[in-house]
Amino acid sequence: MAKELAKARPARRHRGLVVFLTGLSGSGKSTVARGLTDALRESGERTVTLLDGDVVRRELSAGLGYSKADRDLNVRRIGWVAAEIARHRGVAICCPIAPYAAARATAREMALTAGAGFVLVHVATPLEVCEQRDRKGLYARARAGLLTGMTGIDDPYEVPTDADVVLDTTDVSVPEAVEAVLQHLTETGWVELKIPSS
Amino acid sequence: MAKELAKARPARRHRGLVVFLTGLSGSGKSTVARGLTDALRESGERTVTLLDGDVVRRELSAGLGYSKADRDLNVRRIGWVAAEIARHRGVAICCPIAPYAAARATAREMALTAGAGFVLVHVATPLEVCEQRDRKGLYARARAGLLTGMTGIDDPYEVPTDADVVLDTTDVSVPEAVEAVLQHLTETGWVELKIPSS
Repeated sequence: MAKELAKARPARRHRGLVVFLTGLSGSGKSTVARGLTDALRESGERTVTLLDGDVVRRELSAGLGYSKADRDLNVRRIGWVAAEIARHRGVAICCPIAPYAAARATAREMALTAGAGFVLVHVATPLEVCEQRDRKGLYARARAGLLTGMTGIDDPYEVPTDADVVLDTTDVSVPEAVEAVLQHLTETGWVELKIPSS
Repeated sequence: MAKELAKARPARRHRGLVVFLTGLSGSGKSTVARGLTDALRESGERTVTLLDGDVVRRELSAGLGYSKADRDLNVRRIGWVAAEIARHRGVAICCPIAPYAAARATAREMALTAGAGFVLVHVATPLEVCEQRDRKGLYARARAGLLTGMTGIDDPYEVPTDADVVLDTTDVSVPEAVEAVLQHLTETGWVELKIPSS
C-alpha cells in the first residue's frame, strides 16, 4: 500500500515545496532565502516565490503587530499562501522569525496536506552574534527599553526540534549557507541542481 | 518582435490564469466560482485554488472591514495571492464583490505581470434580483438601517467596462452560467475541455 502510494506520486522534483527558514532577527534568514531563491531561479528548473519580510508586510500582513496572536496569524497566513503555491507545484521560500513551534507545525501540516514537501531550516545563529550585527538597530532599542516584544530579548523563541537543516551563519559565508540548503534539497530529491564547481 | 514574443511563450493552456468574478452580494459569484472550480478540477487538466469568501476571510483578511480602504486592501491581497498562484502556472478563481474599478485593474495588472492570464467575469445580476434572494439577510438589514456600507444600497459598485464575460444569473441555471465561462475559456485557449454533451 505504501509502495503503491509512493508510485502514484510524481518524483519530488516535480512536486511543490515549501522551504521555511526560521530564526532570530539578524540570524541571516532573509539573506539565505534570497540566495536560495536566486539559485533556484537561475537553474530554471522551478518557479519560485520568495515570501520575505518586505513582501509579506506589504501584501499579506499589513496591520499585524508583534503579539503572540498577531505573530501566529502572520505565520499561518504565510504558511497558507506558501502551501497554495506548492499545491500548484511551485516552490515557496519564506523566512519569518516564526518563534512558536505550534505555528511552524501548522505551516508544515498545510504544505503536506497540499501534497507538497516542507523543509524546515533553522538559522540558528546565536543571539550574541545577531545582537552584535544588529543591522536594523532593533536589539539596541530593545536593550534600551524603547522596544518591547523583541524575540530573544523579552519575547520567546522556541528552538525547533524538527529542523531538517540547521545553519549557524556566524562563521559561514552566504554562498556556503545557501549551498548547504541546496545540498540538502538535492540529496533529498527536491531539486536536481548541477552545482557549478568553483 | 511581437511574433517572436508570442512564439517564446507556452500555449495559454500551459500558463497560469486568474479568473476574477465581481458582482453584488447575492449575484451568484460564489456559486458560479465553485461550479467552475469543480469542473476544472474534474477535468484534471489544471490545478485550481478557489479563493472564495470563507477562505479569504479565514486565511487572508481576518480583521479587515468594509471601508473603501479595507475593501481595496482585501481585493489587492486576493489579487496578489491569485497572481502568485498563476505565476506557478496554477489557476486561481476568486469572487470578491470588488466594487472599485481601480482595485480590479490592479488585480489584472498583477496577474499579467506574473506572466499569467486574467479573465474578468462580471456577474451582473440586477440589484432587485439579488435583494429578492437576500440569502444572508444582508439587504433586509441594510434597508432597515441596521447595516451600513452595503454595496448597492449605501455603498457604490462601479460597473466594469472591461469585463471579458458578463453573466446575469436571473434566469440562468448554475450549470449554464458555469458553461458560459468555460466556453469563453475554451474559445480563448485557456483551457481545453471536453464539455460532455448532454
